[in-house]
Amino acid sequence: MKIAILPGDGIGPEIVAEAVKVLRALALPLEMETAPVGGAAYEAAGHPLPEATLRLAQQADAVLFGAVGDWKYDTLPRPLRPEQAILGLRKQLGLFANFRPALCYEQLTHASSLKPELVAGLDILIIRELTGDIYFGQPRGRRAAPDGPFAGAEEAFDTMRYSRPEVERIARVAFEAARQRRGKVTSVDKANVLETFQLWKDVVTEVHRDYPDVELDHMYVDNAAMQLVKAPKKFDVIVTGNMFGDILSDEAAMLTGSIGMLPSASLNERGQGLYEPSHGSAPDIAGKGVANPLATILSAAMMLRYSLKQPEAAARIEAAVQRVLAQGLRTADIASPGCTVVGTAQMGDAVVQAL
Amino acid sequence: MKIAILPGDGIGPEIVAEAVKVLRALALPLEMETAPVGGAAYEAAGHPLPEATLRLAQQADAVLFGAVGDWKYDTLPRPLRPEQAILGLRKQLGLFANFRPALCYEQLTHASSLKPELVAGLDILIIRELTGDIYFGQPRGRRAAPDGPFAGAEEAFDTMRYSRPEVERIARVAFEAARQRRGKVTSVDKANVLETFQLWKDVVTEVHRDYPDVELDHMYVDNAAMQLVKAPKKFDVIVTGNMFGDILSDEAAMLTGSIGMLPSASLNERGQGLYEPSHGSAPDIAGKGVANPLATILSAAMMLRYSLKQPEAAARIEAAVQRVLAQGLRTADIASPGCTVVGTAQMGDAVVQAL
Ligand SMILES: CC(C)[C@H](C(=O)O)[C@@H](O)C(=O)O
Ligand SMILES: CC(C)[C@H](C(=O)O)[C@@H](O)C(=O)O
Repeated sequence: MKIAILPGDGIGPEIVAEAVKVLRALALPLEMETAPVGGAAYEAAGHPLPEATLRLAQQADAVLFGAVGDWKYDTLPRPLRPEQAILGLRKQLGLFANFRPALCYEQLTHASSLKPELVAGLDILIIRELTGDIYFGQPRGRRAAPDGPFAGAEEAFDTMRYSRPEVERIARVAFEAARQRRGKVTSVDKANVLETFQLWKDVVTEVHRDYPDVELDHMYVDNAAMQLVKAPKKFDVIVTGNMFGDILSDEAAMLTGSIGMLPSASLNERGQGLYEPSHGSAPDIAGKGVANPLATILSAAMMLRYSLKQPEAAARIEAAVQRVLAQGLRTADIASPGCTVVGTAQMGDAVVQAL
Repeated sequence: MKIAILPGDGIGPEIVAEAVKVLRALALPLEMETAPVGGAAYEAAGHPLPEATLRLAQQADAVLFGAVGDWKYDTLPRPLRPEQAILGLRKQLGLFANFRPALCYEQLTHASSLKPELVAGLDILIIRELTGDIYFGQPRGRRAAPDGPFAGAEEAFDTMRYSRPEVERIARVAFEAARQRRGKVTSVDKANVLETFQLWKDVVTEVHRDYPDVELDHMYVDNAAMQLVKAPKKFDVIVTGNMFGDILSDEAAMLTGSIGMLPSASLNERGQGLYEPSHGSAPDIAGKGVANPLATILSAAMMLRYSLKQPEAAARIEAAVQRVLAQGLRTADIASPGCTVVGTAQMGDAVVQAL
């Protein structure tokens, strides 16, 4: 089983190091190879996603990804910015299905902005389509406005697009996932305004005929942004497009109050996957040894489950994380009175101990 | 001063009736004329925005709008659905600047999903561009995918577009508004992915040179969705495009816990405006006399201030609403122990009394 390790920028290297430590402790036949990505790769090789890094990722069964980005690259031309690496990996590997659980750990309920009764036991799975929509739609660019009230003025434009088979496959992923959970899918669209999302809604409705045991409802994206705040526990699986999923998955993650705990998985049709924490590169705390490695460690668990078919090993890691929380160990981002605050490496060590 | 009254669907007629009651009690020379809009207009005249309604709105100094929409129109072809009325009014009247305050009333802090300390005193102004972006961009439609991995399959598409002058004018509106408030603008974009929002960010940055006294920062939309949950009081004015503004303004409104209290204004370059509550048509409670009319009454106050240049009358209404809250009167949506629950008409009467 071959894993490409792409630590990236900011806190990426620190948190990935802990996840690697945990993976090694499992004593499974895992072959791990590391390569630079993002700003680190730009500095080492002049490009955020060098050819060698992409090849390594393509040949691996799974990619363990840290985080990319730093303010210092903001002035680079867009094709050289760190984010292009993650967009490039998604596209090149065909990682169309992004799984973002928003889970509220019992011991961390207090950390949420929301009143505890609204988030206690929260367990939402957001399934975001990841290779289509306005993220990749052509044409896009700048030009003189060809028509409209500002014809002739400089304008910029992008194209939102979804085809029927793209919506079909992500809808199936969502219905299948719901079957393993509480049996409910909420499809989020903006069919009242967008042609793209009218097709989305039509296709999800059609695919639903194959899953009569799963409950389906449709919600406009603006309403979904509200209902997540008002009554998040009403959701089970949310399925939506790339752009809306970007916004709603971050909103949902923040609702839990512990985004430092949330893993994510991005899968292609062959089960290959990229696994990364839901949080970003946090350049402000990079190198200080205080970042929370648990989201990355839990991403490694998702990797074992989904791409490497090692469900017992995955469950062992998840149980170890639970045990460490129960012991009262916390990194600074999830600290609370009465708990022991530990650094990144100590947290990784504690998970290894608890395995 | 001529006002077009467009009650619309669902609770629209009930709540608008209370706002009209309050306006009449001011004894100002206001000429009010009512016309159907939305589903009601479709039933009366076969179109959600009949010619006569549009003409009335165009000839008025301001439009007081209730709400449109009902599940029962969901199966109509899109051009006949109630939402097309509001989109048509925005476009035809050129209402490019949408003001959506997210305000947390002291007496209603408890109603928020968020912990009270996070929302007490909250006062954000979201300025949403309302006539551009993917809402109106052409081309759009369905076709066989012209290229990409699903070439030939049925696809739907929309076009996101912003021109330089469109971004310039909404940026100026935001900087001017911030000058009357706490002097800070957060421009929300997705410049790391979208060409449209790279131009947006560039233009906002340029316009900022004319407002050196106002602080400007830029935030990605996914991060904004998170920061609104985490620390909403850090925001003063948020300015963003039509699509992101739709999502974030609803999220922010729901954070206050009392969306039934929040008015909105949509203005064009001549100061003509459309005023409507931030909430929707709530068909489930329509006709029961329990809807909260205060958002609509406060929208009438905004109308007096912005389009009719009657700031004293506006302030009188706002003070009356405060007084009614202080008296402990509440509609069901904002009820809490110890308060007196009243219906729609009683609430309107109480505001008139308090004037
Ligand atoms: C970095 C950025 C391009 C990316 C996205 O918008 O998809 C990020 O926000 C994410 O959600 O992984
Ligand atoms: C009804 C709908 C078209 C509209 C929008 O998306 O703009 C509504 O959500 C709003 O925010 O006023």
